[in-house]
Amino acid sequence: MRMMKAVVAPQPGGPEALQLVERPRPVPGEGEVLVLVHAAGVNRPDVMQRMGAYPPPPGAGDILGLEIAGTVEEVGAGAARFVPGDKVMALVASGAYAQWAVVHETNALPVPDGMSLVEAGAVPETYFTVWSNVFERAALKPGETILLHGGTSGIGTTATMLAKALGSTVIVTCGSDDKCDAALKVGADVAINYKTTDFVEAARKATGGKGPEVVVDMVGGPYMQRNLDVVAVDGRIAQIAYQQGAEAHLDTLPLLIKRLTWTGSTLRARPVEMKARLAGAVEEHVLPLLAKGVARPLVDSTFALDDVRSAHQRMDDGLHVGKIVLTMQEASVD
Amino acid sequence: MRMMKAVVAPQPGGPEALQLVERPRPVPGEGEVLVLVHAAGVNRPDVMQRMGAYPPPPGAGDILGLEIAGTVEEVGAGAARFVPGDKVMALVASGAYAQWAVVHETNALPVPDGMSLVEAGAVPETYFTVWSNVFERAALKPGETILLHGGTSGIGTTATMLAKALGSTVIVTCGSDDKCDAALKVGADVAINYKTTDFVEAARKATGGKGPEVVVDMVGGPYMQRNLDVVAVDGRIAQIAYQQGAEAHLDTLPLLIKRLTWTGSTLRARPVEMKARLAGAVEEHVLPLLAKGVARPLVDSTFALDDVRSAHQRMDDGLHVGKIVLTMQEASVD
Repeated sequence: MRMMKAVVAPQPGGPEALQLVERPRPVPGEGEVLVLVHAAGVNRPDVMQRMGAYPPPPGAGDILGLEIAGTVEEVGAGAARFVPGDKVMALVASGAYAQWAVVHETNALPVPDGMSLVEAGAVPETYFTVWSNVFERAALKPGETILLHGGTSGIGTTATMLAKALGSTVIVTCGSDDKCDAALKVGADVAINYKTTDFVEAARKATGGKGPEVVVDMVGGPYMQRNLDVVAVDGRIAQIAYQQGAEAHLDTLPLLIKRLTWTGSTLRARPVEMKARLAGAVEEHVLPLLAKGVARPLVDSTFALDDVRSAHQRMDDGLHVGKIVLTMQEASVD
Repeated sequence: MRMMKAVVAPQPGGPEALQLVERPRPVPGEGEVLVLVHAAGVNRPDVMQRMGAYPPPPGAGDILGLEIAGTVEEVGAGAARFVPGDKVMALVASGAYAQWAVVHETNALPVPDGMSLVEAGAVPETYFTVWSNVFERAALKPGETILLHGGTSGIGTTATMLAKALGSTVIVTCGSDDKCDAALKVGADVAINYKTTDFVEAARKATGGKGPEVVVDMVGGPYMQRNLDVVAVDGRIAQIAYQQGAEAHLDTLPLLIKRLTWTGSTLRARPVEMKARLAGAVEEHVLPLLAKGVARPLVDSTFALDDVRSAHQRMDDGLHVGKIVLTMQEASVD
């Protein structure tokens, strides 16, 4: 049996809970491709899983990681979308922190010309999440304003670049003046330091009193009421995580009075068909931008797979701007 | 100046707060028509307004009532959709409890052949609300299941008939066994007496454990958590009122985990253009059904305009099944 290096977190904990282990190299099933992984993005859900707070969905393995970029090495029965040698980036329900991974071909996209595999490894989870939440579920339209919490996160920077590229105004919240500066450099029109400024008041002021049409929130907790309060009439709130919990005492009257829509979703638990449809939308609307060099992923830093604990430590420290990416080329147990 | 009888509620209170007064007959403005009112539906928001809890939106007058049916008597400048003598039913932001009313022609629909003006007076508010919430905002699709609270209300009976006519399964909650029987006669597949049965458990059981894809709620308060808990994966909740208030301690995690959409809206506050678009959708999708005799409004009882207090007393008593309608023909101060 051919083996590979992979990362798991058998016991919940800090970065030291991550273990580099040997696992059998996966075999592509029907409609799947085997990818030699070059890069895998590090995402907040990976940290949650490491901490024991986000178990993999039924059917997914225990190897961490939700997105890969690499080269197709084998194609399974009935898979016809790619041939060996093709460079792909793909969404996986688990298994990205490894030297090889299998993915259903419908959940993979070709890497645009001129984009490195490290950049490509930072695309799927974030761009699929942003497309699904900002442009589908919250239906942001050109000319509208979006309020993004976590302006320098992978989601925040990607949503900023795509929303700007597609004609919207972007307001972000960040936890320091330095992060505000970084967010403005990425393209945000207004950056609010939430530690020193009330974002409800500041976002109202920035929109002439009417509030942003769309809010994307990964904070939850006390932000939920404030999102309901700040969003504009006919506004949409997309809940993508709950870093401060999902519970609060809420006055939901704004939902009725302002005709709001509050949606929530995670990417990982969706059926493969739903991810395939989303991949199609990203291919249609986002890949042409990336191919033109617009809204390319912002890579904060790269770490070798062997050094995965440092990668998680950097995310835990919250110092990153853009994506942290693992690279696999140097690790080999073949 | 030509006068007419109309109903206002200058001081908040019970049915006795309603006053029959004389007011100037309105004059149609640009794009408006003057309608000789034959019938006006009584709606829950009218009761709220009488109690001082639902003031008319800016620009609307103090005469109660949100929907009319009658005969076009004059057309204003630029109004071309109807001619005098046409029978119409229309949504108004206020002014329905009167002998004459003006309405923007785009917010009026022709009365289908074979439908009485009393039936037509029970259509606009309820059918527009149901179409907007059930079929647009909550996007109920054929084959899906809808849970309707208030199964024997005007909204409940109308939503039941339309959802059944368009191929869905209907579960309703009602406050007595008699009301459950009435709801089943209207067409509901399952009726749950919420006073004796936990609707979350019963609705789960009725859907093989997965829950209804759509919930329409006018209760709020403690129902909000239960709606989040019972609704199916990828489900939609439409909040149309808050009879038990808009506040609660909520765990909104189901929003994320089940990829839910929670929307709220009221009809009255929408701009006339938005109501016009909705009128177009109702004309396209609902009028053909009504013309065939399908999903005709269920009229509980009629009261003369002079007897408006009895009409409100009946709604306050909660004994009605279907709509209470005021009739204006016998009142005249011309």
